[in-house]
Amino acid sequence: MSEGRVYIDGSVSAESEARIPAGDRGFLYGDALFETLRTYGGEPFLLDRHLERLMGSCQELEITPRESPAEIAEIVLQLVAELKAEAYVRIAISRGSGYGPWPKELPEHGRTVIAVRPLVPPAAELYARGMRVATSQLMRFEGSPLVGHKTANYLEAVLARGDAAEHGADEALLLNTAGRISELSAANVFAVVYGRLLTPDLEEGPLPGITRQFVLELAEKAGIKTHCGQLTPEALGDADEAFATSSLLEICPIAELDGQKIGEAVPGQVTQKLQAAYRAATAQS
Amino acid sequence: MSEGRVYIDGSVSAESEARIPAGDRGFLYGDALFETLRTYGGEPFLLDRHLERLMGSCQELEITPRESPAEIAEIVLQLVAELKAEAYVRIAISRGSGYGPWPKELPEHGRTVIAVRPLVPPAAELYARGMRVATSQLMRFEGSPLVGHKTANYLEAVLARGDAAEHGADEALLLNTAGRISELSAANVFAVVYGRLLTPDLEEGPLPGITRQFVLELAEKAGIKTHCGQLTPEALGDADEAFATSSLLEICPIAELDGQKIGEAVPGQVTQKLQAAYRAATAQS
Repeated sequence: MSEGRVYIDGSVSAESEARIPAGDRGFLYGDALFETLRTYGGEPFLLDRHLERLMGSCQELEITPRESPAEIAEIVLQLVAELKAEAYVRIAISRGSGYGPWPKELPEHGRTVIAVRPLVPPAAELYARGMRVATSQLMRFEGSPLVGHKTANYLEAVLARGDAAEHGADEALLLNTAGRISELSAANVFAVVYGRLLTPDLEEGPLPGITRQFVLELAEKAGIKTHCGQLTPEALGDADEAFATSSLLEICPIAELDGQKIGEAVPGQVTQKLQAAYRAATAQS
Repeated sequence: MSEGRVYIDGSVSAESEARIPAGDRGFLYGDALFETLRTYGGEPFLLDRHLERLMGSCQELEITPRESPAEIAEIVLQLVAELKAEAYVRIAISRGSGYGPWPKELPEHGRTVIAVRPLVPPAAELYARGMRVATSQLMRFEGSPLVGHKTANYLEAVLARGDAAEHGADEALLLNTAGRISELSAANVFAVVYGRLLTPDLEEGPLPGITRQFVLELAEKAGIKTHCGQLTPEALGDADEAFATSSLLEICPIAELDGQKIGEAVPGQVTQKLQAAYRAATAQS
């Protein structure tokens, strides 16, 4: 399998050779934003939506990208074409180089780091048996200004996932300070109750996932009623079906919450219907 | 002034040449810890205490340093000696390289990045006029597992400091979810009330600052009563004196909170006494 390659500051290197300046604020302070997505048939899926979210967050956090969205898209397409394999794409934009929380002279522009690597999809077994999810001790503080942005301040997700793995779970369920569900450590969460699709509202603290939004649209097109609101762990446990969404997971059934089975079948009927619609959408792209 | 140098994975480079792998988890996820300190007369001040805190956090976050504390200290001493100037020292340890929140194969050990740069001390004017502090809209969530660790998830501090700067303030005061003072964006905060030194308890969410602890010890040696507990913004505003502490700021008077003067003189008498004791301690080192 060909090696991944990484674009940094106008040059492309093999992944094993790719280096960023040690004074980059992404490394120093997690002062960076990122997107992850994948290709289908060599086409990056929903790249425009990912770039739109990324640029919106850059604007809100006052990070000035070095390249325009069109330039970034072009670089991604070129790297993906050269990989000659399905790709995992990670686009990061840091605030640039500079020590100190808020240096008097901020970098003129940020640093874009685009990694395009051979895709390693999640194991098929995960979709067949369904994910095991464990409620994390770690709370998602929905009042943080970072909520809603995919920032490189990702250490809480890392620790939550590490804890989950120690307990034999595939993912960690993060509750907000109200004790309601926010999201998984790196995916959004959906429940199906009486044929209706439920997912936490953005006010509950989840990332506004690109796949989350796309699945809501697919559901509406398929005539499945959707509701974004409040979702308790109890309601998730009692749901008829549950699944997780992310660009890499796509739509992955959740079989268990804290060792208790959710619903009757894995995947459930609504989940299957949405998986089929998602497959069709990615095949068209 | 000589250029700084950076140690990474066993090699030392000039700061302008220093590069880290683009897949380092510090850059990807802020999955790293760090310490900052300075030298006096070419001697790193309280290096042992900084390394102790760093190693404690590594253990708690299950990051395995590549080098022992003794090896890190040796590298710091050598770089500092070669700089031939007072130095700013930043020691970072990331979890190493690897994509994904919790990869199946975690890196065998972390990556140590030690930057030793010519010291640029805060402007003398800041000590003469005292810091202007503005209360941040941004809350410190004292329930986060990251509280108490100096992690590279530092973006909230970056944003808080940026907001403060936009409002003409030098620093941002971060309150916890109870509305009490946690700390400044990159320093601990102290109030002097009736000759007694007050600072938020570690349960209030501040970093367990090395300088904070050292100043508490200096105060006790000087016969100044100290108390770590709860501190409200109102109590800080009504204090006789206030100051900020960090390895780089040392002891810096706070003159104003949200545009309102604190106390009569800048620096106040107790602050001056502690500043003198701190100077004496650094001169001895």
